[in-house]
Amino acid sequence: MDFELKILGSSSAIPAPNRFHTAQVLTVGSHLNLIDCGEGTQSQLMRYKIKHHRILNIFISHLHGDHYFGLFGLLSTMHLQMRTTPLNLFGPPGLAELLTLQFKVSNTNINFPITFHEIDPTVYKRIYEDKTITVHTLPMQHRVPCCGFLFKEKPKPRHLVKEKLPSFLTPPQLVRLKFGEDIKDEHGKILVRNKDVTTSPKRSRSYAYCSDTKYKEDILPYIQGVDLLYHEATFMHDMVERAAYTHHSTAQQAATLAAKANVKRLFIGHFSARYKDLTPLLEEAKAVFENTALAIEGKTIGILEYDFRD
Amino acid sequence: MDFELKILGSSSAIPAPNRFHTAQVLTVGSHLNLIDCGEGTQSQLMRYKIKHHRILNIFISHLHGDHYFGLFGLLSTMHLQMRTTPLNLFGPPGLAELLTLQFKVSNTNINFPITFHEIDPTVYKRIYEDKTITVHTLPMQHRVPCCGFLFKEKPKPRHLVKEKLPSFLTPPQLVRLKFGEDIKDEHGKILVRNKDVTTSPKRSRSYAYCSDTKYKEDILPYIQGVDLLYHEATFMHDMVERAAYTHHSTAQQAATLAAKANVKRLFIGHFSARYKDLTPLLEEAKAVFENTALAIEGKTIGILEYDFRD
Repeated sequence: MDFELKILGSSSAIPAPNRFHTAQVLTVGSHLNLIDCGEGTQSQLMRYKIKHHRILNIFISHLHGDHYFGLFGLLSTMHLQMRTTPLNLFGPPGLAELLTLQFKVSNTNINFPITFHEIDPTVYKRIYEDKTITVHTLPMQHRVPCCGFLFKEKPKPRHLVKEKLPSFLTPPQLVRLKFGEDIKDEHGKILVRNKDVTTSPKRSRSYAYCSDTKYKEDILPYIQGVDLLYHEATFMHDMVERAAYTHHSTAQQAATLAAKANVKRLFIGHFSARYKDLTPLLEEAKAVFENTALAIEGKTIGILEYDFRD
Repeated sequence: MDFELKILGSSSAIPAPNRFHTAQVLTVGSHLNLIDCGEGTQSQLMRYKIKHHRILNIFISHLHGDHYFGLFGLLSTMHLQMRTTPLNLFGPPGLAELLTLQFKVSNTNINFPITFHEIDPTVYKRIYEDKTITVHTLPMQHRVPCCGFLFKEKPKPRHLVKEKLPSFLTPPQLVRLKFGEDIKDEHGKILVRNKDVTTSPKRSRSYAYCSDTKYKEDILPYIQGVDLLYHEATFMHDMVERAAYTHHSTAQQAATLAAKANVKRLFIGHFSARYKDLTPLLEEAKAVFENTALAIEGKTIGILEYDFRD
């Protein structure tokens, strides 16, 4: 099953030529999750041939325009193109009021159900769950209430090794084996030891999106060991004071967090328009955390379900 | 002095690849007027190297998203780039409330003065005047309150023909000649006949912007003889019923209005995404009004101050 991230925008608030404001699409199986929605997101979706009707959830990190000014246009287009599929919209307090007012003044009765989930950006909390994934808020520290999002696949069943399975096992017992239990008789004696007949499940993949924030170590426990960390890196570290003042991070800080969290891979983005060439930001991060890449427009990374068998 | 229109977007509400939502810039001398501001307008300004700090007036025709969803981002960018010049913003009821709420939720105290002028889209009325131009609303007929805008240069002074001017004329008398008066003595006897010593002034140029609307002949008196008429042409005429139902116009209708108003030139725009090739729309319009062009992204037209001397 796909677990793939696509970057639609890499720019911080002041726009830069050929860069777009923040938006990302996380594909999990056939479902798309849109993470932030800066101005021009619907054009970027069109450019990369991503069908917006497949988006089931939209997550808005905070109410600075470069993270949500594309939302109104995208929802309008979904409406005009006769979407009927329900949409979940997660965002901080204020977003629902803004949308309600927009729809009122444009005399629009959106013809598909939008369920608005107001999130508390100050806590780590599960805000979404389906058969495949959970999503938690990651509290950020920015000039307005702001959170990141942690996407985690749920634990997957263990593999049954057919040739080792005793023939007396019933279907319910097979299910219990898949979920890691041993099979015991009525006296508690082990009949089939789980590890003798199963192998490890496929990995449960994870992606942490750290939107606009100061350097903030207290999220380390939540993002520990994730497959992919996106962290904003608005500035080079020679501007660390400017970063602190504006509640942003430097490339070096993003990489430091990645190293401390022992993540597998780091994406940096949300670059200040002052950087025409992004190579120095990448090099600064790589000096601290080698497995770093630039989260620039069009960049895609699929995370595989590696099998680490016993 | 320049009187030049630049098209930033040609698309109707549903976006189409490589087309942008409605926005136009009318340059009058050194002042820029932005007319509508669909999503992506700030990117388009950047693409065409138009400095947004030169925009003094923004006119929003109506509150359908494809005409104003770029406004929040543009104003935010002006703020972030430390604009201090005052800005006039003209728009229908509801726009000020939307902006106020946007700035509130994003905790933004815009650092330049915005004067919001709420306009009544149902009447023909002068809403703006400076030394050079006047701007009037043109009532449209759309699904929400909507108006177009008529930009007119003020009358210009007549030319004095130096070699024909009697030497006794005082500076105030010269000014009166420039404004078309004869020079008389205290008994009312004509000393200098205006037409003997002056020639016609440069033309006062005019541009009529007809935003989303049904075909509507009652604006003919206001747009009679304008140098340039922009009129929406969302559909071909085989979809005239769809046009009426959605309160839009066809290319043929736009051209019919141009012919009846005896305008000098017609621009058509706001094309439905269903038309990949716009040539048939142009041909349909040209069959009725030859001097028609497509108002597509990047299209520029300067209107000259032709001298029609006596």
